Amino acid sequence: MGGDHAPAAIVEGAVQAYREFGVESVLAGIPERIDAELARLNARDVPFEILEATQVIEMGESPSRSLKSKTNSSMRVAAEAVKRGDAAAVFSAGDTGGAFAASLHVLQRMKGVVRPAIAALLPTLKGFSIILDVGANLIPKAQHLFQFGVMGMVYAETAMGISSPTLGLLNVGGEDSKGTDALKTAHQLFAKSDLNFLGNVEGSTIFQGSVDVIVCDGFSGNVALKVSESLSEMLTTLLREEVTQSFRSKIGYMFLQNGLKSMRKRTDYTEYGAAPLLGLNGLCMIGHGRSNAKAVKNALRVSAEVVKKQMNSQIQNEIDRQIAIHRSTEPGWRLWNQIRDGIFHGGSSDETPENDEVAQSEEASRSGDASPSN
Amino acid sequence: MGGDHAPAAIVEGAVQAYREFGVESVLAGIPERIDAELARLNARDVPFEILEATQVIEMGESPSRSLKSKTNSSMRVAAEAVKRGDAAAVFSAGDTGGAFAASLHVLQRMKGVVRPAIAALLPTLKGFSIILDVGANLIPKAQHLFQFGVMGMVYAETAMGISSPTLGLLNVGGEDSKGTDALKTAHQLFAKSDLNFLGNVEGSTIFQGSVDVIVCDGFSGNVALKVSESLSEMLTTLLREEVTQSFRSKIGYMFLQNGLKSMRKRTDYTEYGAAPLLGLNGLCMIGHGRSNAKAVKNALRVSAEVVKKQMNSQIQNEIDRQIAIHRSTEPGWRLWNQIRDGIFHGGSSDETPENDEVAQSEEASRSGDASPSN
Repeated sequence: MGGDHAPAAIVEGAVQAYREFGVESVLAGIPERIDAELARLNARDVPFEILEATQVIEMGESPSRSLKSKTNSSMRVAAEAVKRGDAAAVFSAGDTGGAFAASLHVLQRMKGVVRPAIAALLPTLKGFSIILDVGANLIPKAQHLFQFGVMGMVYAETAMGISSPTLGLLNVGGEDSKGTDALKTAHQLFAKSDLNFLGNVEGSTIFQGSVDVIVCDGFSGNVALKVSESLSEMLTTLLREEVTQSFRSKIGYMFLQNGLKSMRKRTDYTEYGAAPLLGLNGLCMIGHGRSNAKAVKNALRVSAEVVKKQMNSQIQNEIDRQIAIHRSTEPGWRLWNQIRDGIFHGGSSDETPENDEVAQSEEASRSGDASPSN
Repeated sequence: MGGDHAPAAIVEGAVQAYREFGVESVLAGIPERIDAELARLNARDVPFEILEATQVIEMGESPSRSLKSKTNSSMRVAAEAVKRGDAAAVFSAGDTGGAFAASLHVLQRMKGVVRPAIAALLPTLKGFSIILDVGANLIPKAQHLFQFGVMGMVYAETAMGISSPTLGLLNVGGEDSKGTDALKTAHQLFAKSDLNFLGNVEGSTIFQGSVDVIVCDGFSGNVALKVSESLSEMLTTLLREEVTQSFRSKIGYMFLQNGLKSMRKRTDYTEYGAAPLLGLNGLCMIGHGRSNAKAVKNALRVSAEVVKKQMNSQIQNEIDRQIAIHRSTEPGWRLWNQIRDGIFHGGSSDETPENDEVAQSEEASRSGDASPSN
């Protein structure tokens, strides 16, 4: 029920994903409205289960409020289907904060994961890079950033099929000494790890595709992602304006159109459709609020692939392995002690799991819609 | 002596600025090397004063160290010329952190200004927007952000000639409740002020040119600026690649070339050449490390214009006026008390002016080169 074009675009995308890729959906929402969409699409014969959910989380609603008051929201009902094992993944085009809060509450964090993160795709000269976090953690600590890197690398390898992916830290300069304290410590953690860490990357180099996975705080990640989306729109508009200036340019544009179209396709987010929320016990894919049927269809296709490749158990293995490495090699290391405290004692004094859960949902909400756009 | 192409490009740009616009320079650096460049350019007849400076602040050098050990750096000597009144402004293409530290130390903050900021230009569909801070303050507080807005508005009006400029706050969502605590408080400060504040702007909308002045923290500002610079490079490369795919596209590209050139010119940073450091007693322009002669020439032209328009005294008036407004209408307001404390008592307990000076220089250094690129 979430998203600008819900439930029409959601149901249509699900029907397309079934017809094209054989992906079966469980639809959570108001049954009559879902049924009306299926009828419109002549798709009442699809073998979709419909779960009744009477409430809808609105855009911009406070996640902590919706968690308490809307226990029958479509997002909540869908996440519970994943928890029961009746569905393998949940997709939502609704409010990022609301979707994040509901899935975090229902599915819970993976063992050892301190902060789940939203991973998005950024088009580069070499294809795509993965950038995370793009909105769930506005001011992450060093150990959060480190775990984003660990999870992002597994996502790159399993879901995107990149063998031996490389990792970079988004910063305001190449030198190790640049950036905030959290970034400097994260730099050290990465440098000491066995991850393929290439150092800092800057806003000026990320489109070279020099690294496969870019780690950053959710605020700058959100800004970088949205700037990149809108700048290409701006350049297209500028080009069109220039073209109308002369007959010569008009002819050039005509001849170039196929090239421009193919270029746009190379940088088209709807081919991927949604951004995974990494670090939960269950796959959660967050689509852009503007998701159309094509974006939904592709999101469901990608979700099915990610589930088949067992990304989540691979993330769990890698998180466990990283914790074991640091426990054996540097048992006294302060930061890793903090992480271990987070696991075994339910967080540090000011950050109990419950408070942290609500806090991060609020943060994801404050960060707005962070998923890739259409 | 600072910058990738110093002193050659600096001297050449200064000579060009003199010949084309009549802007006279005072050159600070190693006299023999400056003289050699003037000889190379057949420009020994220009009426430039040369100030001997034996030291050079290297890229990435710790600003607090260079402040103490390099009291005869070209940057320091140039800033002192401004302080004495022998020069109206200082331009440097050297290390941003070093230039910032030296000019802050020598020129000092304007009365009432808590944190100086670097303002850069971002090309939009309607021309340019001003974005600040882009590197001097990685984690600014709400009252810092408010003052960035005040200074940016004066810059827009006097230097850029925009009448009744509009203001926006870079955030991860349009709603007032989005973002970090500092952003939410800054939003309130702006909303209560008499500035023409249009609310939050997102990374996805800044290129629409919907506001003239964009206020943000130095980290995201730096990322947004650098992403925008590199994305347009990437799109040009992609376009060129597509063009080589077919004869048809090649013809199109040929016909379109003038249009593309004019488009690039519209988004060309070297037309402006440097980013002002706002909030000091004296104008300081920071150029990109890669500054070529053209960028230096234009930076000197813009500097002369800004001096002629008395931007700094207008900023001082506006800062005074804003403080007076808040003092009269809301004398008990905590944030403004903090700002007043900063003026009359030399900063809050943990932030003495001296410590703060060094801290901010270090921060500017950590943020790397934040000025517009060529």
